[in-house]
Amino acid sequence: MDPRAIGVFDSGVGGLTVFHALERALPSESMVYLGDTARVPYGTRSAETVVRYSLEAVRFLERQRVKMVVVACNTASSVALDALRAAASVPVVGVIEPGARRAVEASASGRIGVIGTRATVASGAYKRAIQALHPQAEVLSQACPLFVPLAEEGWTDDEVARSVARAYLEPFRRAGVDVLVLGCTHYPLLRRVIGEIMGPKVALVDSAESVAAEVGGLLGGAPALAARGGAATPEHHFYVTDAPEPFQVVAERFLGRTIRCLEWASLDAPVRTGS
Amino acid sequence: MDPRAIGVFDSGVGGLTVFHALERALPSESMVYLGDTARVPYGTRSAETVVRYSLEAVRFLERQRVKMVVVACNTASSVALDALRAAASVPVVGVIEPGARRAVEASASGRIGVIGTRATVASGAYKRAIQALHPQAEVLSQACPLFVPLAEEGWTDDEVARSVARAYLEPFRRAGVDVLVLGCTHYPLLRRVIGEIMGPKVALVDSAESVAAEVGGLLGGAPALAARGGAATPEHHFYVTDAPEPFQVVAERFLGRTIRCLEWASLDAPVRTGS
Repeated sequence: MDPRAIGVFDSGVGGLTVFHALERALPSESMVYLGDTARVPYGTRSAETVVRYSLEAVRFLERQRVKMVVVACNTASSVALDALRAAASVPVVGVIEPGARRAVEASASGRIGVIGTRATVASGAYKRAIQALHPQAEVLSQACPLFVPLAEEGWTDDEVARSVARAYLEPFRRAGVDVLVLGCTHYPLLRRVIGEIMGPKVALVDSAESVAAEVGGLLGGAPALAARGGAATPEHHFYVTDAPEPFQVVAERFLGRTIRCLEWASLDAPVRTGS
Repeated sequence: MDPRAIGVFDSGVGGLTVFHALERALPSESMVYLGDTARVPYGTRSAETVVRYSLEAVRFLERQRVKMVVVACNTASSVALDALRAAASVPVVGVIEPGARRAVEASASGRIGVIGTRATVASGAYKRAIQALHPQAEVLSQACPLFVPLAEEGWTDDEVARSVARAYLEPFRRAGVDVLVLGCTHYPLLRRVIGEIMGPKVALVDSAESVAAEVGGLLGGAPALAARGGAATPEHHFYVTDAPEPFQVVAERFLGRTIRCLEWASLDAPVRTGS
Protein backbone atom coordinates (compact mmCIF):
# COMPACT_ATOMS: atom_id res chain seq x y z
CA MET A 1 0.00 0.00 0.00
CA ASP A 2 1.28 3.42 -0.99
CA PRO A 3 1.60 5.18 2.38
CA ARG A 4 0.99 8.66 0.98
CA ALA A 5 -2.30 10.28 1.93
CA ILE A 6 -5.36 10.85 -0.24
CA GLY A 7 -6.05 14.57 -0.70
CA VAL A 8 -9.67 15.65 -0.34
CA PHE A 9 -10.66 19.14 -1.35
CA ASP A 10 -13.88 21.10 -0.91
CA SER A 11 -14.86 24.76 -0.83
CA GLY A 12 -15.79 24.34 2.84
CA VAL A 13 -17.22 21.83 5.23
CA GLY A 14 -19.61 19.97 2.91
CA GLY A 15 -16.88 17.71 1.49
CA LEU A 16 -16.65 16.05 4.89
CA THR A 17 -19.56 13.83 3.77
CA VAL A 18 -17.16 12.49 1.11
CA PHE A 19 -14.29 12.30 3.62
CA HIS A 20 -16.56 10.27 5.91
CA ALA A 21 -17.53 7.83 3.14
CA LEU A 22 -13.85 7.41 2.18
CA GLU A 23 -12.92 6.77 5.81
CA ARG A 24 -15.52 4.02 6.09
CA ALA A 25 -14.61 2.42 2.76
CA LEU A 26 -10.81 2.72 3.11
CA PRO A 27 -10.07 2.64 6.84
CA SER A 28 -6.29 2.27 6.47
CA GLU A 29 -5.80 5.29 4.22
CA SER A 30 -4.46 8.57 5.59
CA MET A 31 -6.15 11.70 4.30
CA VAL A 32 -5.41 15.40 3.97
CA TYR A 33 -8.62 17.45 3.87
CA LEU A 34 -8.57 21.02 2.61
CA GLY A 35 -11.61 23.29 3.06
CA ASP A 36 -11.29 26.68 1.35
CA THR A 37 -13.47 28.28 4.04
CA ALA A 38 -12.14 31.81 3.44
CA ARG A 39 -13.64 31.76 -0.07
CA VAL A 40 -16.66 29.45 0.32
CA PRO A 41 -19.14 29.21 -1.39
CA TYR A 42 -17.90 28.36 -4.87
CA GLY A 43 -21.41 27.70 -6.16
CA THR A 44 -22.28 31.33 -6.86
CA ARG A 45 -18.97 32.23 -8.58
CA SER A 46 -17.98 32.30 -12.22
CA ALA A 47 -16.34 29.26 -13.80
CA GLU A 48 -13.05 31.19 -14.22
CA THR A 49 -12.87 31.98 -10.53
CA VAL A 50 -13.75 28.42 -9.49
CA VAL A 51 -11.02 27.06 -11.80
CA ARG A 52 -8.47 29.48 -10.33
CA TYR A 53 -9.35 28.63 -6.72
CA SER A 54 -9.42 24.89 -7.45
CA LEU A 55 -5.99 24.97 -9.08
CA GLU A 56 -4.61 26.70 -5.97
CA ALA A 57 -6.19 24.00 -3.81
CA VAL A 58 -4.69 21.17 -5.85
CA ARG A 59 -1.27 22.84 -5.78
CA PHE A 60 -1.54 23.02 -2.00
CA LEU A 61 -2.43 19.32 -1.74
CA GLU A 62 0.46 18.41 -4.04
CA ARG A 63 2.78 20.25 -1.65
CA GLN A 64 1.42 17.93 1.07
CA ARG A 65 2.61 15.02 -1.16
CA VAL A 66 -0.76 13.32 -1.60
CA LYS A 67 -1.02 10.37 -4.01
CA MET A 68 -4.41 11.43 -5.41
CA VAL A 69 -6.85 14.32 -5.18
CA VAL A 70 -10.57 13.79 -4.61
CA VAL A 71 -12.53 16.90 -5.59
CA ALA A 72 -15.32 16.56 -3.00
CA CYS A 73 -17.11 19.64 -4.28
CA ASN A 74 -19.77 19.41 -6.95
CA THR A 75 -19.12 22.92 -8.21
CA ALA A 76 -15.37 22.42 -8.64
CA SER A 77 -15.95 18.96 -10.15
CA SER A 78 -18.45 20.44 -12.60
CA VAL A 79 -16.39 23.28 -13.97
CA ALA A 80 -12.72 22.64 -13.09
CA LEU A 81 -12.08 18.88 -13.41
CA ASP A 82 -10.48 18.98 -16.87
CA ALA A 83 -8.22 21.89 -15.88
CA LEU A 84 -7.22 20.11 -12.66
CA ARG A 85 -6.45 16.84 -14.44
CA ALA A 86 -4.33 18.70 -16.98
CA ALA A 87 -2.38 20.54 -14.28
CA ALA A 88 -2.00 17.89 -11.56
CA SER A 89 0.86 15.38 -11.24
CA VAL A 90 -1.44 12.84 -9.48
CA PRO A 91 -4.84 11.35 -10.40
CA VAL A 92 -7.84 13.63 -9.81
CA VAL A 93 -11.29 12.17 -9.05
CA GLY A 94 -14.51 14.22 -9.10
CA VAL A 95 -17.98 13.54 -7.72
CA ILE A 96 -20.07 14.02 -10.88
CA GLU A 97 -19.35 10.80 -12.80
CA PRO A 98 -19.93 8.43 -9.86
CA GLY A 99 -23.17 10.26 -8.98
CA ALA A 100 -24.36 10.12 -12.58
CA ARG A 101 -23.65 6.38 -12.71
CA ARG A 102 -25.73 5.69 -9.59
CA ALA A 103 -28.56 7.87 -10.91
CA VAL A 104 -28.74 5.93 -14.18
CA GLU A 105 -28.66 2.60 -12.30
CA ALA A 106 -31.47 3.73 -9.98
CA SER A 107 -33.82 5.14 -12.63
CA ALA A 108 -36.45 2.96 -14.30
CA SER A 109 -38.18 5.79 -16.21
CA GLY A 110 -35.03 7.57 -17.38
CA ARG A 111 -36.48 10.80 -16.02
CA ILE A 112 -33.85 12.13 -13.61
CA GLY A 113 -33.78 15.29 -11.52
CA VAL A 114 -30.59 17.08 -10.46
CA ILE A 115 -30.33 19.78 -7.77
CA GLY A 116 -27.14 21.72 -7.03
CA THR A 117 -25.56 25.15 -6.77
CA ARG A 118 -26.03 27.77 -9.49
CA ALA A 119 -22.56 27.00 -10.91
CA THR A 120 -23.10 23.22 -10.95
CA VAL A 121 -26.46 23.51 -12.68
CA ALA A 122 -25.22 26.15 -15.16
CA SER A 123 -22.29 23.91 -16.12
CA GLY A 124 -24.64 21.11 -17.30
CA ALA A 125 -22.05 18.60 -16.03
CA TYR A 126 -24.54 16.13 -14.52
CA LYS A 127 -26.73 16.21 -17.61
CA ARG A 128 -23.74 15.47 -19.85
CA ALA A 129 -22.48 12.67 -17.58
CA ILE A 130 -25.95 11.07 -17.30
CA GLN A 131 -26.66 11.27 -21.03
CA ALA A 132 -23.22 9.83 -21.83
CA LEU A 133 -24.35 6.68 -19.99
CA HIS A 134 -28.03 6.80 -21.06
CA PRO A 135 -28.54 8.98 -24.15
CA GLN A 136 -32.35 8.80 -23.89
CA ALA A 137 -32.42 10.03 -20.27
CA GLU A 138 -34.43 13.16 -19.66
CA VAL A 139 -32.57 15.36 -17.16
CA LEU A 140 -34.24 18.24 -15.29
CA SER A 141 -32.04 20.55 -13.22
CA GLN A 142 -32.68 23.24 -10.63
CA ALA A 143 -30.28 25.41 -8.62
CA CYS A 144 -31.25 25.61 -4.92
CA PRO A 145 -29.10 28.43 -3.48
CA LEU A 146 -31.00 28.56 -0.17
CA PHE A 147 -30.28 24.92 0.73
CA VAL A 148 -26.66 25.50 1.84
CA PRO A 149 -27.40 28.37 4.28
CA LEU A 150 -30.45 26.42 5.49
CA ALA A 151 -28.27 23.38 6.27
CA GLU A 152 -25.62 25.57 7.91
CA GLU A 153 -28.27 27.31 10.02
CA GLY A 154 -29.33 23.86 11.25
CA TRP A 155 -32.92 24.43 10.01
CA THR A 156 -33.13 21.02 8.40
CA ASP A 157 -36.45 19.68 9.67
CA ASP A 158 -38.82 22.58 10.32
CA GLU A 159 -41.43 24.72 8.61
CA VAL A 160 -38.82 27.01 6.99
CA ALA A 161 -37.01 24.02 5.47
CA ARG A 162 -40.31 22.62 4.18
CA SER A 163 -41.35 25.93 2.68
CA VAL A 164 -38.00 26.40 0.87
CA ALA A 165 -37.87 22.77 -0.27
CA ARG A 166 -41.44 22.88 -1.61
CA ALA A 167 -40.60 25.98 -3.67
CA TYR A 168 -37.58 24.30 -5.28
CA LEU A 169 -38.89 20.75 -5.66
CA GLU A 170 -42.45 21.25 -6.96
CA PRO A 171 -41.30 21.21 -10.65
CA PHE A 172 -39.64 17.80 -10.13
CA ARG A 173 -42.81 16.38 -8.58
CA ARG A 174 -44.87 17.66 -11.47
CA ALA A 175 -42.41 16.21 -13.98
CA GLY A 176 -42.54 12.79 -12.29
CA VAL A 177 -38.80 12.07 -11.95
CA ASP A 178 -37.98 8.76 -10.23
CA VAL A 179 -34.44 9.77 -9.17
CA LEU A 180 -33.20 13.01 -7.65
CA VAL A 181 -29.44 13.62 -7.52
CA LEU A 182 -28.39 15.64 -4.46
CA GLY A 183 -25.68 17.43 -6.45
CA CYS A 184 -24.12 19.38 -3.58
CA THR A 185 -22.39 17.86 -0.57
CA HIS A 186 -24.52 19.88 1.86
CA TYR A 187 -27.86 18.61 0.58
CA PRO A 188 -27.81 15.20 2.32
CA LEU A 189 -28.31 17.16 5.57
CA LEU A 190 -31.78 18.06 4.17
CA ARG A 191 -32.46 14.50 2.98
CA ARG A 192 -35.40 13.98 5.34
CA VAL A 193 -37.36 17.03 4.19
CA ILE A 194 -36.44 16.43 0.53
CA GLY A 195 -37.56 12.80 0.84
CA GLU A 196 -40.83 13.82 2.48
CA ILE A 197 -41.66 16.19 -0.38
CA MET A 198 -40.53 13.89 -3.20
CA GLY A 199 -42.25 10.84 -1.71
CA PRO A 200 -41.05 7.25 -1.15
CA LYS A 201 -40.97 6.29 -4.85
CA VAL A 202 -38.22 8.77 -5.73
CA ALA A 203 -34.65 7.56 -5.08
CA LEU A 204 -32.28 10.19 -3.67
CA VAL A 205 -28.69 9.84 -4.93
CA ASP A 206 -25.85 11.09 -2.76
CA SER A 207 -22.56 10.60 -4.59
CA ALA A 208 -20.27 10.26 -1.55
CA GLU A 209 -20.51 6.43 -1.45
CA SER A 210 -19.93 5.99 -5.19
CA VAL A 211 -16.88 8.25 -5.04
CA ALA A 212 -15.47 6.12 -2.24
CA ALA A 213 -15.96 3.00 -4.37
CA GLU A 214 -14.25 4.64 -7.37
CA VAL A 215 -11.26 5.71 -5.25
CA GLY A 216 -10.99 2.18 -3.86
CA GLY A 217 -10.85 0.83 -7.41
CA LEU A 218 -8.15 3.30 -8.44
CA LEU A 219 -6.03 2.34 -5.42
CA GLY A 220 -5.83 -1.25 -6.57
CA GLY A 221 -9.01 -3.21 -6.34
CA ALA A 222 -11.56 -3.71 -3.63
CA PRO A 223 -11.52 -1.42 -0.61
CA ALA A 224 -10.71 -4.41 1.60
CA LEU A 225 -7.29 -4.75 -0.10
CA ALA A 226 -6.26 -1.30 1.02
CA ALA A 227 -7.43 -2.07 4.53
CA ARG A 228 -5.40 -5.29 4.62
CA GLY A 229 -2.18 -3.62 3.48
CA GLY A 230 -2.11 -0.87 6.10
CA ALA A 231 -0.44 -1.85 9.33
CA ALA A 232 -0.15 1.65 10.79
CA THR A 233 -3.06 3.71 12.06
CA PRO A 234 -4.00 6.26 9.39
CA GLU A 235 -3.31 9.90 10.07
CA HIS A 236 -5.72 12.60 8.96
CA HIS A 237 -4.81 16.25 8.59
CA PHE A 238 -7.32 19.04 8.11
CA TYR A 239 -6.52 22.44 6.64
CA VAL A 240 -8.85 25.43 6.31
CA THR A 241 -8.25 28.87 4.84
CA ASP A 242 -10.34 30.75 7.44
CA ALA A 243 -10.36 30.47 11.24
CA PRO A 244 -10.23 26.80 12.34
CA GLU A 245 -12.63 27.02 15.33
CA PRO A 246 -16.02 27.23 13.55
CA PHE A 247 -14.88 24.49 11.13
CA GLN A 248 -13.97 22.26 14.05
CA VAL A 249 -17.44 22.55 15.57
CA VAL A 250 -19.23 21.71 12.32
CA ALA A 251 -16.72 19.03 11.34
CA GLU A 252 -17.17 17.20 14.62
CA ARG A 253 -20.93 17.30 14.09
CA PHE A 254 -20.48 15.91 10.53
CA LEU A 255 -18.05 13.15 11.59
CA GLY A 256 -19.46 12.34 15.01
CA ARG A 257 -16.06 12.49 16.75
CA THR A 258 -13.33 14.93 17.72
CA ILE A 259 -10.79 15.93 15.09
CA ARG A 260 -7.14 16.74 15.69
CA CYS A 261 -4.45 18.17 13.39
CA LEU A 262 -6.53 21.10 12.16
CA GLU A 263 -4.52 24.04 10.82
CA TRP A 264 -4.98 27.31 8.99
CA ALA A 265 -3.55 27.42 5.45
CA SER A 266 -3.25 30.23 2.95
CA LEU A 267 -3.74 29.41 -0.72
CA ASP A 268 -3.58 32.88 -2.20
CA ALA A 269 -0.21 33.65 -0.59
CA PRO A 270 1.67 30.47 -1.49
CA VAL A 271 4.90 31.69 0.08
CA ARG A 272 3.36 31.15 3.54
CA THR A 273 2.06 27.66 2.92
CA GLY A 274 5.16 25.84 1.68
CA SER A 275 5.32 22.75 3.86
CA MET B 1 -14.26 70.91 -5.02
CA ASP B 2 -11.60 68.19 -4.88
CA PRO B 3 -12.05 66.42 -8.24
CA ARG B 4 -10.83 63.04 -6.97
CA ALA B 5 -13.43 60.31 -6.68
CA ILE B 6 -15.00 58.86 -3.55
CA GLY B 7 -14.12 55.19 -3.13
CA VAL B 8 -16.98 52.90 -2.13
CA PHE B 9 -16.22 49.35 -1.09
CA ASP B 10 -18.47 46.37 -0.39
CA SER B 11 -18.08 42.60 -0.35
CA GLY B 12 -20.43 42.42 -3.32
CA VAL B 13 -23.48 44.09 -4.77
CA GLY B 14 -25.25 45.19 -1.54
CA GLY B 15 -23.15 48.35 -1.15
CA LEU B 16 -24.86 49.73 -4.24
CA THR B 17 -27.66 50.88 -1.92
CA VAL B 18 -25.03 53.15 -0.32
CA PHE B 19 -23.65 54.15 -3.73
CA HIS B 20 -27.17 55.09 -4.78
CA ALA B 21 -27.75 57.25 -1.68
CA LEU B 22 -24.37 58.98 -2.20
CA GLU B 23 -25.21 59.64 -5.83
CA ARG B 24 -28.49 61.30 -4.88
CA ALA B 25 -26.97 63.36 -2.06
CA LEU B 26 -23.77 64.36 -3.88
CA PRO B 27 -24.63 64.44 -7.59
CA SER B 28 -21.37 66.12 -8.68
CA GLU B 29 -19.04 63.61 -7.04
CA SER B 30 -17.30 60.92 -9.08
CA MET B 31 -17.16 57.49 -7.47
CA VAL B 32 -15.14 54.30 -7.74
CA TYR B 33 -17.13 51.28 -6.56
CA LEU B 34 -15.35 48.03 -5.68
CA GLY B 35 -17.34 44.83 -5.07
CA ASP B 36 -15.23 41.88 -3.90
CA THR B 37 -17.57 39.45 -5.64
CA ALA B 38 -15.00 36.65 -5.86
CA ARG B 39 -14.92 36.42 -2.05
CA VAL B 40 -18.44 37.51 -1.06
CA PRO B 41 -19.97 36.99 1.49
CA TYR B 42 -17.82 38.46 4.27
CA GLY B 43 -20.55 37.94 6.87
CA THR B 44 -19.77 34.30 7.58
CA ARG B 45 -15.97 34.72 7.81
CA SER B 46 -13.66 35.28 10.75
CA ALA B 47 -12.69 38.81 11.79
CA GLU B 48 -9.05 38.18 10.75
CA THR B 49 -10.07 37.22 7.23
CA VAL B 50 -12.45 40.18 6.88
CA VAL B 51 -9.70 42.57 8.03
CA ARG B 52 -7.27 41.07 5.51
CA TYR B 53 -9.74 41.30 2.61
CA SER B 54 -10.80 44.85 3.58
CA LEU B 55 -7.21 46.08 3.73
CA GLU B 56 -6.65 44.71 0.22
CA ALA B 57 -9.77 46.55 -0.96
CA VAL B 58 -8.67 49.86 0.55
CA ARG B 59 -5.19 49.48 -0.98
CA PHE B 60 -6.85 48.94 -4.35
CA LEU B 61 -8.99 52.07 -3.97
CA GLU B 62 -5.94 54.09 -2.91
CA ARG B 63 -4.26 53.01 -6.14
CA GLN B 64 -7.29 54.51 -7.94
CA ARG B 65 -6.42 57.80 -6.15
CA VAL B 66 -9.69 58.25 -4.29
CA LYS B 67 -9.99 61.09 -1.75
CA MET B 68 -11.98 59.03 0.77
CA VAL B 69 -13.15 55.46 1.31
CA VAL B 70 -16.72 54.62 2.27
CA VAL B 71 -16.95 51.09 3.69
CA ALA B 72 -20.44 50.26 2.42
CA CYS B 73 -20.40 46.85 4.08
CA ASN B 74 -21.70 46.34 7.59
CA THR B 75 -19.45 43.36 8.23
CA ALA B 76 -16.25 45.16 7.19
CA SER B 77 -17.36 48.32 9.06
CA SER B 78 -18.01 46.23 12.18
CA VAL B 79 -14.73 44.38 12.40
CA ALA B 80 -12.17 46.19 10.23
CA LEU B 81 -12.80 49.95 10.54
CA ASP B 82 -10.05 50.67 13.08
CA ALA B 83 -7.50 48.67 11.08
CA LEU B 84 -8.54 50.44 7.87
CA ARG B 85 -8.31 53.91 9.44
CA ALA B 86 -4.86 53.08 10.81
CA ALA B 87 -3.62 51.84 7.43
CA ALA B 88 -5.27 54.27 4.99
CA SER B 89 -3.84 57.57 3.78
CA VAL B 90 -7.35 59.01 3.24
CA PRO B 91 -10.42 59.29 5.54
CA VAL B 92 -12.42 56.08 5.99
CA VAL B 93 -16.16 56.21 6.76
CA GLY B 94 -18.16 53.18 7.90
CA VAL B 95 -21.90 52.49 8.04
CA ILE B 96 -22.28 51.53 11.71
CA GLU B 97 -22.04 54.93 13.44
CA PRO B 98 -24.50 56.74 11.12
CA GLY B 99 -26.97 53.86 11.46
CA ALA B 100 -26.64 53.82 15.25
CA ARG B 101 -27.27 57.58 15.36
CA ARG B 102 -30.51 57.27 13.38
CA ALA B 103 -31.64 54.35 15.51
CA VAL B 104 -31.19 56.34 18.73
CA GLU B 105 -33.01 59.33 17.22
CA ALA B 106 -35.92 57.14 16.11
CA SER B 107 -36.41 55.19 19.36
CA ALA B 108 -38.75 56.42 22.08
CA SER B 109 -38.49 53.33 24.29
CA GLY B 110 -34.72 52.85 24.01
CA ARG B 111 -35.38 49.23 23.09
CA ILE B 112 -33.62 48.72 19.76
CA GLY B 113 -33.27 45.63 17.59
CA VAL B 114 -30.35 44.98 15.21
CA ILE B 115 -30.25 42.35 12.46
CA GLY B 116 -27.16 41.61 10.38
CA THR B 117 -24.73 38.93 9.27
CA ARG B 118 -23.12 36.52 11.75
CA ALA B 119 -19.90 38.55 11.75
CA THR B 120 -21.64 41.91 12.27
CA VAL B 121 -23.73 40.59 15.16
CA ALA B 122 -20.79 38.73 16.74
CA SER B 123 -18.70 41.91 16.64
CA GLY B 124 -21.19 43.79 18.86
CA ALA B 125 -20.36 46.95 16.87
CA TYR B 126 -23.93 48.28 16.64
CA LYS B 127 -24.57 47.66 20.34
CA ARG B 128 -21.39 49.56 21.27
CA ALA B 129 -22.17 52.45 18.91
CA ILE B 130 -25.80 52.71 20.12
CA GLN B 131 -24.88 52.56 23.79
CA ALA B 132 -22.12 55.15 23.30
CA LEU B 133 -24.92 57.57 22.29
CA HIS B 134 -27.59 56.27 24.69
CA PRO B 135 -26.06 54.27 27.55
CA GLN B 136 -29.47 53.09 28.83
CA ALA B 137 -30.52 51.68 25.48
CA GLU B 138 -31.39 48.00 25.44
CA VAL B 139 -30.02 46.39 22.27
CA LEU B 140 -31.16 42.99 20.99
CA SER B 141 -29.30 41.44 18.07
CA GLN B 142 -29.91 38.52 15.75
CA ALA B 143 -27.92 37.17 12.80
CA CYS B 144 -30.13 36.36 9.78
CA PRO B 145 -27.89 34.37 7.40
CA LEU B 146 -30.76 33.35 5.11
CA PHE B 147 -31.76 36.93 4.27
CA VAL B 148 -28.92 37.57 1.78
CA PRO B 149 -29.52 34.46 -0.37
CA LEU B 150 -33.26 35.13 -0.13
CA ALA B 151 -32.78 38.67 -1.47
CA GLU B 152 -30.41 37.44 -4.19
CA GLU B 153 -32.90 34.72 -5.21
CA GLY B 154 -35.47 37.51 -5.66
CA TRP B 155 -37.82 35.81 -3.17
CA THR B 156 -38.57 39.04 -1.36
CA ASP B 157 -42.34 39.04 -1.11
CA ASP B 158 -43.63 35.47 -1.00
CA GLU B 159 -44.44 32.66 1.44
CA VAL B 160 -40.78 31.56 1.73
CA ALA B 161 -39.68 35.11 2.64
CA ARG B 162 -42.47 35.36 5.22
CA SER B 163 -41.61 32.00 6.75
CA VAL B 164 -37.88 32.87 7.06
CA ALA B 165 -38.58 36.39 8.33
CA ARG B 166 -41.06 35.16 10.95
CA ALA B 167 -38.46 32.70 12.28
CA TYR B 168 -35.84 35.43 12.68
CA LEU B 169 -38.03 38.34 13.82
CA GLU B 170 -40.35 36.70 16.35
CA PRO B 171 -37.96 37.41 19.30
CA PHE B 172 -37.94 41.15 18.42
CA ARG B 173 -41.74 41.25 18.34
CA ARG B 174 -41.94 39.54 21.71
CA ALA B 175 -39.34 41.96 23.16
CA GLY B 176 -41.31 44.97 21.91
CA VAL B 177 -38.52 46.92 20.18
CA ASP B 178 -39.63 50.17 18.52
CA VAL B 179 -36.69 50.39 16.10
CA LEU B 180 -35.09 47.67 13.97
CA VAL B 181 -31.73 48.40 12.33
CA LEU B 182 -31.33 46.67 8.96
CA GLY B 183 -27.63 46.08 9.59
CA CYS B 184 -26.76 44.60 6.21
CA THR B 185 -26.98 46.40 2.88
CA HIS B 186 -29.06 43.59 1.34
CA TYR B 187 -31.84 43.71 3.92
CA PRO B 188 -33.67 46.78 2.56
CA LEU B 189 -34.68 44.53 -0.36
CA LEU B 190 -36.76 42.59 2.21
CA ARG B 191 -38.12 45.75 3.83
CA ARG B 192 -41.73 45.05 2.87
CA VAL B 193 -41.91 41.60 4.46
CA ILE B 194 -39.88 42.75 7.49
CA GLY B 195 -42.22 45.74 7.93
CA GLU B 196 -45.28 43.51 7.62
CA ILE B 197 -44.05 41.22 10.40
CA MET B 198 -42.78 43.98 12.72
CA GLY B 199 -45.90 46.13 12.23
CA PRO B 200 -46.34 49.86 11.52
CA LYS B 201 -45.14 51.04 14.96
CA VAL B 202 -41.60 49.76 14.49
CA ALA B 203 -39.22 52.08 12.58
CA LEU B 204 -36.86 50.34 10.16
CA VAL B 205 -33.43 52.02 9.94
CA ASP B 206 -31.41 51.68 6.74
CA SER B 207 -28.07 53.43 7.17
CA ALA B 208 -27.42 54.35 3.51
CA GLU B 209 -28.98 57.82 3.80
CA SER B 210 -27.17 58.71 7.05
CA VAL B 211 -23.85 57.65 5.54
CA ALA B 212 -24.46 59.94 2.59
CA ALA B 213 -25.13 62.85 4.98
CA GLU B 214 -21.95 62.09 6.91
CA VAL B 215 -19.85 62.00 3.74
CA GLY B 216 -21.40 65.31 2.62
CA GLY B 217 -20.33 66.84 5.93
CA LEU B 218 -16.77 65.55 5.63
CA LEU B 219 -16.49 66.96 2.11
CA GLY B 220 -17.10 70.48 3.37
CA GLY B 221 -20.58 71.23 4.57
CA ALA B 222 -23.99 70.57 3.14
CA PRO B 223 -24.36 68.25 0.15
CA ALA B 224 -25.53 71.25 -1.93
CA LEU B 225 -22.08 72.83 -1.67
CA ALA B 226 -20.43 69.89 -3.34
CA ALA B 227 -23.03 69.98 -6.07
CA ARG B 228 -22.42 73.68 -6.69
CA GLY B 229 -18.62 73.24 -7.02
CA GLY B 230 -18.69 70.59 -9.70
CA ALA B 231 -18.87 71.82 -13.25
CA ALA B 232 -18.05 68.55 -14.98
CA THR B 233 -20.33 65.52 -15.16
CA PRO B 234 -19.19 63.00 -12.57
CA GLU B 235 -17.62 59.75 -13.72
CA HIS B 236 -18.31 56.48 -11.98
CA HIS B 237 -16.13 53.38 -12.28
CA PHE B 238 -17.13 49.94 -11.07
CA TYR B 239 -14.70 47.13 -10.29
CA VAL B 240 -15.52 43.56 -9.30
CA THR B 241 -13.23 40.64 -8.44
CA ASP B 242 -15.38 37.99 -10.15
CA ALA B 243 -16.97 37.96 -13.62
CA PRO B 244 -18.56 41.37 -14.40
CA GLU B 245 -21.70 40.10 -16.22
CA PRO B 246 -23.82 38.87 -13.28
CA PHE B 247 -22.86 42.00 -11.30
CA GLN B 248 -23.99 44.21 -14.16
CA VAL B 249 -27.45 42.60 -14.24
CA VAL B 250 -28.01 43.01 -10.49
CA ALA B 251 -26.41 46.47 -10.37
CA GLU B 252 -28.70 47.79 -13.07
CA ARG B 253 -31.68 46.43 -11.13
CA PHE B 254 -30.37 48.15 -7.93
CA LEU B 255 -29.66 51.48 -9.64
CA GLY B 256 -32.48 51.52 -12.16
CA ARG B 257 -30.24 52.43 -15.10
CA THR B 258 -27.43 51.02 -17.22
CA ILE B 259 -23.88 51.16 -15.90
CA ARG B 260 -20.73 51.65 -17.92
CA CYS B 261 -17.05 51.40 -16.96
CA LEU B 262 -17.32 48.00 -15.25
CA GLU B 263 -14.07 46.05 -15.01
CA TRP B 264 -12.60 42.97 -13.41
CA ALA B 265 -9.96 43.61 -10.73
CA SER B 266 -7.74 41.25 -8.78
CA LEU B 267 -7.02 42.11 -5.15
CA ASP B 268 -5.11 39.02 -4.10
CA ALA B 269 -2.57 39.35 -6.92
CA PRO B 270 -1.69 43.05 -6.54
CA VAL B 271 0.91 42.89 -9.29
CA ARG B 272 -1.90 42.62 -11.84
CA THR B 273 -3.99 45.49 -10.55
CA GLY B 274 -1.40 48.30 -10.40
CA SER B 275 -3.14 51.18 -12.11
